[in-house]
Amino acid sequence: MSAATPLPAYAGYKHFITTSPSAGVAHVEINRPDKLNAFHEGMWRELGAVFNQLSRDSDVRAVVLSGAGDRAFTAGLDVKAAAEEGSILGGKVNLDPARKAARFRRSVDDFQSCISAIEKCEKPVICVMHGICLGLAIDIACCADVRLAARDARFAVKEVDIGMAADIGTLSRLPKIVGSASWVKDVCLTARDFNAAEALAQGFVSRVLDDKKAALAEAFKLAAFMSEKSPVAVQGTKELLNHARDHTVEDSLRYTGVWNAAALQTKDLQDALLSNLQRRKPTFEKL
Amino acid sequence: MSAATPLPAYAGYKHFITTSPSAGVAHVEINRPDKLNAFHEGMWRELGAVFNQLSRDSDVRAVVLSGAGDRAFTAGLDVKAAAEEGSILGGKVNLDPARKAARFRRSVDDFQSCISAIEKCEKPVICVMHGICLGLAIDIACCADVRLAARDARFAVKEVDIGMAADIGTLSRLPKIVGSASWVKDVCLTARDFNAAEALAQGFVSRVLDDKKAALAEAFKLAAFMSEKSPVAVQGTKELLNHARDHTVEDSLRYTGVWNAAALQTKDLQDALLSNLQRRKPTFEKL
Amino acid sequence: MSAATPLPAYAGYKHFITTSPSAGVAHVEINRPDKLNAFHEGMWRELGAVFNQLSRDSDVRAVVLSGAGDRAFTAGLDVKAAAEEGSILGGKVNLDPARKAARFRRSVDDFQSCISAIEKCEKPVICVMHGICLGLAIDIACCADVRLAARDARFAVKEVDIGMAADIGTLSRLPKIVGSASWVKDVCLTARDFNAAEALAQGFVSRVLDDKKAALAEAFKLAAFMSEKSPVAVQGTKELLNHARDHTVEDSLRYTGVWNAAALQTKDLQDALLSNLQRRKPTFEKL
Amino acid sequence: MSAATPLPAYAGYKHFITTSPSAGVAHVEINRPDKLNAFHEGMWRELGAVFNQLSRDSDVRAVVLSGAGDRAFTAGLDVKAAAEEGSILGGKVNLDPARKAARFRRSVDDFQSCISAIEKCEKPVICVMHGICLGLAIDIACCADVRLAARDARFAVKEVDIGMAADIGTLSRLPKIVGSASWVKDVCLTARDFNAAEALAQGFVSRVLDDKKAALAEAFKLAAFMSEKSPVAVQGTKELLNHARDHTVEDSLRYTGVWNAAALQTKDLQDALLSNLQRRKPTFEKL
Amino acid sequence: MSAATPLPAYAGYKHFITTSPSAGVAHVEINRPDKLNAFHEGMWRELGAVFNQLSRDSDVRAVVLSGAGDRAFTAGLDVKAAAEEGSILGGKVNLDPARKAARFRRSVDDFQSCISAIEKCEKPVICVMHGICLGLAIDIACCADVRLAARDARFAVKEVDIGMAADIGTLSRLPKIVGSASWVKDVCLTARDFNAAEALAQGFVSRVLDDKKAALAEAFKLAAFMSEKSPVAVQGTKELLNHARDHTVEDSLRYTGVWNAAALQTKDLQDALLSNLQRRKPTFEKL
Amino acid sequence: MSAATPLPAYAGYKHFITTSPSAGVAHVEINRPDKLNAFHEGMWRELGAVFNQLSRDSDVRAVVLSGAGDRAFTAGLDVKAAAEEGSILGGKVNLDPARKAARFRRSVDDFQSCISAIEKCEKPVICVMHGICLGLAIDIACCADVRLAARDARFAVKEVDIGMAADIGTLSRLPKIVGSASWVKDVCLTARDFNAAEALAQGFVSRVLDDKKAALAEAFKLAAFMSEKSPVAVQGTKELLNHARDHTVEDSLRYTGVWNAAALQTKDLQDALLSNLQRRKPTFEKL
Repeated sequence: MSAATPLPAYAGYKHFITTSPSAGVAHVEINRPDKLNAFHEGMWRELGAVFNQLSRDSDVRAVVLSGAGDRAFTAGLDVKAAAEEGSILGGKVNLDPARKAARFRRSVDDFQSCISAIEKCEKPVICVMHGICLGLAIDIACCADVRLAARDARFAVKEVDIGMAADIGTLSRLPKIVGSASWVKDVCLTARDFNAAEALAQGFVSRVLDDKKAALAEAFKLAAFMSEKSPVAVQGTKELLNHARDHTVEDSLRYTGVWNAAALQTKDLQDALLSNLQRRKPTFEKL
Repeated sequence: MSAATPLPAYAGYKHFITTSPSAGVAHVEINRPDKLNAFHEGMWRELGAVFNQLSRDSDVRAVVLSGAGDRAFTAGLDVKAAAEEGSILGGKVNLDPARKAARFRRSVDDFQSCISAIEKCEKPVICVMHGICLGLAIDIACCADVRLAARDARFAVKEVDIGMAADIGTLSRLPKIVGSASWVKDVCLTARDFNAAEALAQGFVSRVLDDKKAALAEAFKLAAFMSEKSPVAVQGTKELLNHARDHTVEDSLRYTGVWNAAALQTKDLQDALLSNLQRRKPTFEKL
Repeated sequence: MSAATPLPAYAGYKHFITTSPSAGVAHVEINRPDKLNAFHEGMWRELGAVFNQLSRDSDVRAVVLSGAGDRAFTAGLDVKAAAEEGSILGGKVNLDPARKAARFRRSVDDFQSCISAIEKCEKPVICVMHGICLGLAIDIACCADVRLAARDARFAVKEVDIGMAADIGTLSRLPKIVGSASWVKDVCLTARDFNAAEALAQGFVSRVLDDKKAALAEAFKLAAFMSEKSPVAVQGTKELLNHARDHTVEDSLRYTGVWNAAALQTKDLQDALLSNLQRRKPTFEKL
Repeated sequence: MSAATPLPAYAGYKHFITTSPSAGVAHVEINRPDKLNAFHEGMWRELGAVFNQLSRDSDVRAVVLSGAGDRAFTAGLDVKAAAEEGSILGGKVNLDPARKAARFRRSVDDFQSCISAIEKCEKPVICVMHGICLGLAIDIACCADVRLAARDARFAVKEVDIGMAADIGTLSRLPKIVGSASWVKDVCLTARDFNAAEALAQGFVSRVLDDKKAALAEAFKLAAFMSEKSPVAVQGTKELLNHARDHTVEDSLRYTGVWNAAALQTKDLQDALLSNLQRRKPTFEKL
Repeated sequence: MSAATPLPAYAGYKHFITTSPSAGVAHVEINRPDKLNAFHEGMWRELGAVFNQLSRDSDVRAVVLSGAGDRAFTAGLDVKAAAEEGSILGGKVNLDPARKAARFRRSVDDFQSCISAIEKCEKPVICVMHGICLGLAIDIACCADVRLAARDARFAVKEVDIGMAADIGTLSRLPKIVGSASWVKDVCLTARDFNAAEALAQGFVSRVLDDKKAALAEAFKLAAFMSEKSPVAVQGTKELLNHARDHTVEDSLRYTGVWNAAALQTKDLQDALLSNLQRRKPTFEKL
Repeated sequence: MSAATPLPAYAGYKHFITTSPSAGVAHVEINRPDKLNAFHEGMWRELGAVFNQLSRDSDVRAVVLSGAGDRAFTAGLDVKAAAEEGSILGGKVNLDPARKAARFRRSVDDFQSCISAIEKCEKPVICVMHGICLGLAIDIACCADVRLAARDARFAVKEVDIGMAADIGTLSRLPKIVGSASWVKDVCLTARDFNAAEALAQGFVSRVLDDKKAALAEAFKLAAFMSEKSPVAVQGTKELLNHARDHTVEDSLRYTGVWNAAALQTKDLQDALLSNLQRRKPTFEKL
């Protein structure tokens, strides 16, 4: 993706490269390819910051997230780094278990909220998964709106293999983004691998492309397509779909009505209708 | 479907033809084929009224909903009519945005509650989708219990293309009636078309037939099949499945127990058991 | 499965045979093959007791549930026995309908809570379905974590055919364990049969094997695989996935953090990490 | 209240007199004083219609509800009429209990939704209770926003005394509008009387006045006071308080933000601020 | 209360004396007065069993719960016994904290479910509190329907004083049974004493009587009063009020309609109406 | 309160003075007395930061919040400053209403989350209210755990008087912290003043003291009392009470069990029990 324009507002981040393949689209790359893009604490804190910034950046209308290098979207948590930082193995040993629990709870809260920033980002996020996609890779992908995979992607909800239940979102979100609970239990309780074809068949990803390059190209096309629509319509749609997941239909309908009470007052509606009639492409103001 | 018997109780509706292909089955047709069955306000108000009446009509045990003509189930909202009526583009211009918002909110509430009448109808509703199925077509179909498609059906959650988030139910219900959240986000955020095969693969429809005629025939068969069962059992099943969608398993089990505390006192239970033993078809009283 | 070791602690049950195909795995067989494993009240009460015991039995880390004999997982409720016991047809006739309703409600509550014991069991439960799987078979299977089928399995949500809405859990759980609501409504409202291939395509089961023997072998392998992992990780994963189903993502993330605040203090984490480094199989203490 | 202006738009109702004591205020009187304002089906249907109309009537900004005559706000359900109509004692006797249950359920639904119209009315409703206030009186009052009592008011949640649990809203709402669950259980389980002082002490009413005349005068003053404020602010406040009752704080905060995103665009905000500065009374446009 | 009739069906319990002060009323006494009625594990298990039995005992229509002796309703957990049993201080020391946590969680679950049996009991439960009412005393009382106090009652949510957050129900229920959150936080965070007058003012109890004897007499009167009403009405009222606490008004109204669909078919309704007309006391059959 | 020790870690804040009246207690003063402690955006952002820091500061075990000066806790929003900053009156005028709505929604979200930091603070917060307590004063106080008032406190939910519904938390929290919904509606819909006696009677505050000085002294005593207890017990109690408010009893009991599974492993439990026996004051480690 050589031609991508760097986005200066995101130049300060160390672990993520953010460029723009086309107007209104941001491409965020996890950039630690020599370590299979494995995450240490500094990285997930930065990930949260990047997506919080994207959420309020009115120049950005759609986001693509991928991993740098050929081998991995991300191999997940860098367990060695985590052990050294003490965030997993608990640090200061002489605390009583209740006090240690408070530390762990706060750490997990912080970690979760960095990853949830992807879901809370007001713009659609398309996640491109290739190569190794383990553990945290699934937590991250579950927060994206659309998931695409390269054919070489190899997934696993790996956490039980290191003696823990996944706690950064996979167990909370995966059952709500695919159809088969039996399959979810199978992959989460066994930590077994699954490939792109299985991910597609189960609805975890919605398209499989030949390789990372093709998957990225598809993601850029999709993001460009979304970014040309009315941002009032697109961002409202994301918000309302996320709200629906966690509420009754009755509640969701009500919230939708209140949301659209303002959103329907956008000029985009007339512009879109008029453009449709005139068979030309409308352009919409920033949101 | 020439042989269908008209249902006199529904003769007064202007935009919907309601007939009976067989005992206990009502067939409701959206009847504005020259405009691709596109909806204006009068139509959706009538749709609500038709289904409210069907819900309490003890002669009806199952309903089939389809669109008249060869070209469309429905092309969705008649945007031109809506603009003239002011329900979309907001009418009286000199209100402040808060007052306009109140108008929009009330209009959306009214509109939603007309369409939700399909879901609230106590009888099972089978929706037959053919040809063009855009925007409101999806909102309507999401309220039905079973969705069948003709092979020529072409679907789109079209709303973002006219600058708005869908607000009549698609965003509230679609994520709960198919398995893949990635696919839902894809079709809702892009407004792209999808065909019958994709709709089947994703579980949006549960069967695809060769053409509208075949799909209708299948729907009539299915509806007839349902209408011959105990209406206490069938209508209870619909209610309990709809309740389950919006409640925890614990809540749903409790509600089920309370519901069946009365329902199990039906004579249908003995009649069904006896008929099973005697290998004859039972008949059940109206509900 | 001749080589299975009997589990003495479960020898007292009359209607279920519980053996151990391998360390940490319990195999529970519904044992009334001459009646197609159909359930009477004594059986479902015992089923609840068996799973409550398994839940707290620290020697057991995974459970396989199947039906004895070649013909049926279970044909469901033994309607004849139920009629004699009065639990379905209501017993004492001279009660007024409100008093009868109280009886029915309490019976359904008791029955539900026996079957829910499978879901509440803290260990993963793999259900192997073969031959006839009707009515209660689906209620039971919906409580398991993973569902496997033999190719000859024939399923039906049969209750409407005996004049009642299913009330032991199918209507509460089935919509939440498969993706397509249209399919769920179809099979629940018609009581029609579906086979193993359809069950797999819809995500109700996650694997189909050639015959019961192969399905059991696969289940034992899967159970053995799970039972060798850290029980803190595996049982936590089951709990968190079940919790997620009935809560918002926000709630689920919070609960996960609190759960793992204690669970991450397990020695299993270090043991698993170390074993991974040393490329040997770890062993974990009982939980 | 002789000087009240009749409101012609409400002249068609038979059982309710609607007048206007001051600009923007509607006074609805239950008008069957010779029968202690006891309700038959025609009355509660009309009550629903009156409040649905008030909700959308932009000339009305606050509503006072009271009972005509000196003796009763309302003695509740006219049991004799209900028995004749069959809505309580069940009508057609030869239905089986399941079918009778469906009738009862639908009747209760309809009845509830007529009474809930008071709660759903977008304008604040002040209920003035005097004399006899039994059964349905409490259901109705629980739907109002503010409850005032005359000193002679005598209340009872009377339903258990006629062999039934209250089903038109008291049991759903009363526990949420007063503080002491022990008191709620006491009055609901015993059907005992309580007087105005007790009602005040428990927070059921928020003020007690000397007699009906004084209570009405106070209600008119309060209603006039509310109707002079910005209707955007007042109606938003009612909506948000009702929403809060049934949602988590998190949900409620979010809904509030979305609601006010439009409401804060009202001109009323500037007008109110400016008027405050200029120490004059602002006037606000209809909503 | 010397004249009370023993209830033979409850004679087998060791720690609770169950008698009947009048027809249909059961009086359960916590019977360990020499230890201030402090609870050890055997006691709370028995308490659960007593209330489960009362719930299904059709001879019982209302229950009074009190503590034997002059000095205490109950001083709460017998901390010394608990420490010996290991249920609080954790028993087997060489488990890792995750495994210990599983033990604690299961113990708390069991303990909670014994106490919750009071709330789940289908009959109204009136709790009479006198003398010392500490810790578990509050958990227990929160499960009752009506709380009465003797003037000498001294209450405290004592748990923080022994280094723990109350976990048997007080923190879950107390905020929902009184009005002032500030007061709840005050007494729960400080563990300070409060007396009967304060308990009454805050709505925790609904009546204060001169001494234990007077409070018991009042409770028996109240229980007798309730037990003479239709049990269909009374038990339905309890159920619906408990349901309302944990559900939205919308949900609660719906549940109420379904509940009463069966309950309104009771003969008690006619009997009650007729008795009212004839100004005689009706009698109602068992439920 | 001259003797209070400054807390250096909080010296960098401009608008809040944070001192320590006794070990483990932090006293936060809103410090803009010349403007009646009215808030501009910089202040509420800082308030959020202060409480986020207190939440994780293990040297602090209880917090007292009050307003500097004699005249006001806070007069609420500094409307003039807000108008200049554009956060209320909407800033950039040429945006369409949908885009303006997005700005308002984000501003309200940010504002809410700063104030909610008080509620989310893991330590108990005691709010001392004196003099003028308008608008935002109520939003802030609703987030505290315990509310005390000086006799001169004058409260109002003032927002409707400036043409808006309160959106920073009052409408979401007030109905859940006092008992009488009628009173809540009264004060929120009219914006009328209420005094300390009324606040106490309604349960909004739990104690009224003679003047600010006495109220502060009481708050310091209360905070010191709480800070001497086990922080594991105190902070767990706060968390569990806040959780209970927004969940069913069933959910809350379960969460409590999981929470205490770790918390009961604290050494504080033994220390507290032992100290009780030895009748000496225990000391507890930081959390």
